[in-house]
Amino acid sequence: MPDTKLHADGARVLADLNALRTLGTYKTGVHKPTFSEPHRQSLDWLVQKLPEAGLTGAIDGIGNILGTCAKPGPKLLAGSHLESQNYAGWLDGPLGVIYALEAARVLNGDPSVKGAVEVAAWCDEEGHFGSFLGSRSYVGQVTEAEIDAARDRTSGRTMRDALADMRLAGRSRITAEPGRHIGYLEAHIEQGDTLESGKLAIGVVTSIVGIWQYRISFTGEQNHAGTTRMAVRKDAGLALAKFCVAINERFPASSGPRTVWTTGRITLDPGAPSIIPGGAEMLFQIRDDNPAVIARLEELLQTMAAEATAKGTCTVAVEKIRTGAPAMMNPGIQDAIEAASKMLADGRSLRMPSGAGHDAQMLATIMPAGMLFVPSIGGVSHHWTENTADADIITGAQVFVDSCRRILAG
Amino acid sequence: MPDTKLHADGARVLADLNALRTLGTYKTGVHKPTFSEPHRQSLDWLVQKLPEAGLTGAIDGIGNILGTCAKPGPKLLAGSHLESQNYAGWLDGPLGVIYALEAARVLNGDPSVKGAVEVAAWCDEEGHFGSFLGSRSYVGQVTEAEIDAARDRTSGRTMRDALADMRLAGRSRITAEPGRHIGYLEAHIEQGDTLESGKLAIGVVTSIVGIWQYRISFTGEQNHAGTTRMAVRKDAGLALAKFCVAINERFPASSGPRTVWTTGRITLDPGAPSIIPGGAEMLFQIRDDNPAVIARLEELLQTMAAEATAKGTCTVAVEKIRTGAPAMMNPGIQDAIEAASKMLADGRSLRMPSGAGHDAQMLATIMPAGMLFVPSIGGVSHHWTENTADADIITGAQVFVDSCRRILAG
Repeated sequence: MPDTKLHADGARVLADLNALRTLGTYKTGVHKPTFSEPHRQSLDWLVQKLPEAGLTGAIDGIGNILGTCAKPGPKLLAGSHLESQNYAGWLDGPLGVIYALEAARVLNGDPSVKGAVEVAAWCDEEGHFGSFLGSRSYVGQVTEAEIDAARDRTSGRTMRDALADMRLAGRSRITAEPGRHIGYLEAHIEQGDTLESGKLAIGVVTSIVGIWQYRISFTGEQNHAGTTRMAVRKDAGLALAKFCVAINERFPASSGPRTVWTTGRITLDPGAPSIIPGGAEMLFQIRDDNPAVIARLEELLQTMAAEATAKGTCTVAVEKIRTGAPAMMNPGIQDAIEAASKMLADGRSLRMPSGAGHDAQMLATIMPAGMLFVPSIGGVSHHWTENTADADIITGAQVFVDSCRRILAG
Repeated sequence: MPDTKLHADGARVLADLNALRTLGTYKTGVHKPTFSEPHRQSLDWLVQKLPEAGLTGAIDGIGNILGTCAKPGPKLLAGSHLESQNYAGWLDGPLGVIYALEAARVLNGDPSVKGAVEVAAWCDEEGHFGSFLGSRSYVGQVTEAEIDAARDRTSGRTMRDALADMRLAGRSRITAEPGRHIGYLEAHIEQGDTLESGKLAIGVVTSIVGIWQYRISFTGEQNHAGTTRMAVRKDAGLALAKFCVAINERFPASSGPRTVWTTGRITLDPGAPSIIPGGAEMLFQIRDDNPAVIARLEELLQTMAAEATAKGTCTVAVEKIRTGAPAMMNPGIQDAIEAASKMLADGRSLRMPSGAGHDAQMLATIMPAGMLFVPSIGGVSHHWTENTADADIITGAQVFVDSCRRILAG
């Protein structure tokens, strides 16, 4: 057993998470979209907490916080995000930030620990204004032009206006200092039911799957729903429905054990009750951590589109609008998490890929990165009922702090 | 052959239709939504034309025009509408109004003709603000409360504001004077390809099919598109697609020879690319002039919903949101149109139901009603390319005027 003074304080972790839950409370969760007042309050709360962990930091020009430590020796970067999806859960984001803060509080002041944990809150991981804007800004991938163009998907408010309302306009953005960090560690709720159904406590993330996004368009002939005989119709909506069903029938034979695919949005054009749709569109995504599987499925998709066009009354076109790249998690960090789980969670851990995207995939582009999952009750996420048992939250904190200690010890 | 002085003047009809096309021109069609400036100009144009036909009239409090005649004897009501769908054709509506005007010009001043044709333009047949508001108002089915609540589907402008902008606020509405008219006749473009493909000139409408409208809802479970395994998903969008395909497979065996069905709108909830839809909804309609066929199909729909709920991962609910009632056209009027077609269109006529709704179905609730179709090139309607050959427009006018003469003669 490690020295108990290097142990996470479970009650303190729960108290901090509950303090953040009081900002933007919605039922048992929170409504804390990026650059909302409760989001700003949460960022201010964290800045004011940093000194407890020997850290100093401020909100930067894109809403990121990086708490840095003057202690000499290796630095491990740790964190997650503080904003939420709309009307969603209290742990998606804050859990990883508070674990990082707790690790810094436990380890940074102890002279037996070599180096320190530095704490980050990445802005807009939930994508209200863009895609991983905060962590992408930190790794140097966000231009001023992208910020100029960004708007809140829900309200349409420009990001520039939002930054001004947050009193952040004109602040500089923090970017990574090459060589400063030996790695990045992020904790997150699983958002699936793998850990819960296996009675496990810790997910050791092996990779973050890539997301490939497609726009599949169907072109038929718009016509009057009363006067056009069934035999001569070119109904783009029906062609779309057939295509969805065909995907469901044909994808399993070509997919990997953990491949998932989703049609998240369907639009008929013009979308009126008395008009046969002349156009239809579906947003379709595939996730996997194996690009070879994606290549196979993408080829199948193109084959199916060609077949549907040849045999049916409508033309089908598949356009790739986002190419994913799976992020592999560092094996040494995986080993550290697994070792900590053996000691503090009775070895109830599982190596598993993350089906969801996380800031860690951005950090992984510039330094060794790792992730740790705790169980989600019922696998629920992106909903205000999202939750994790207090005991699992505490176990996760203990494993996280010990993982940080092991990574710093090299 | 009838006396040539009782003949429609084809050139005059084409000139009038082209005059109306100059108001709100869009490409080769018009954009003349209800209560737009070009709609108001078209109404003013008609009021100013009425005296040529021995008629007087004004725009009433809902945008209807009724041109009445002082000539003694039986009165036949004839007309259609002047507004258009958005960015649509030049003949859908105006054709029937100008034919009516032409019939009045030819017949009302002739002492050998017993009685007169009175001309109507019904407002908002195209449903920008409601459903057949003008003709329903005339037959006494529209309350002031319905007008209070009506809004333009495209712009959201209230009907009260629109009426005020049209300087029609406070005007009274004309309603049917019991016993005044012996019947109603309306001409319209076919909006389908039956006449064109049969090289026919005139459709003798036997009935206007009823429209039954349903909301079909699918309830599954909203979840994360990356972390939720395929095996445990309850994807409401996929359930909807399967249902659409099943309708397409199972309806033909239970439908009549002219039944048509259409899924015009599909919505996934929440409709985001990375969320498995927990809800989905489709607007589905069936049209037929035989209620027994509809009853059979409606029962099939409910059976299919129950089967899908029992066998699948989602629940399916079918809700009827509009009950249609087919309007039967008067047999005597059908005979008059057919006789006129024999004389003036070489008998190239066909008795056929109307798959589209028309103001005639409202007038049919209070008096004998009939309709005459002219061919639509390529069957196209509700699009700016909608058109009818000049020769067919002229033949239609001649048959229409002669049909009016025959109906007045009893």
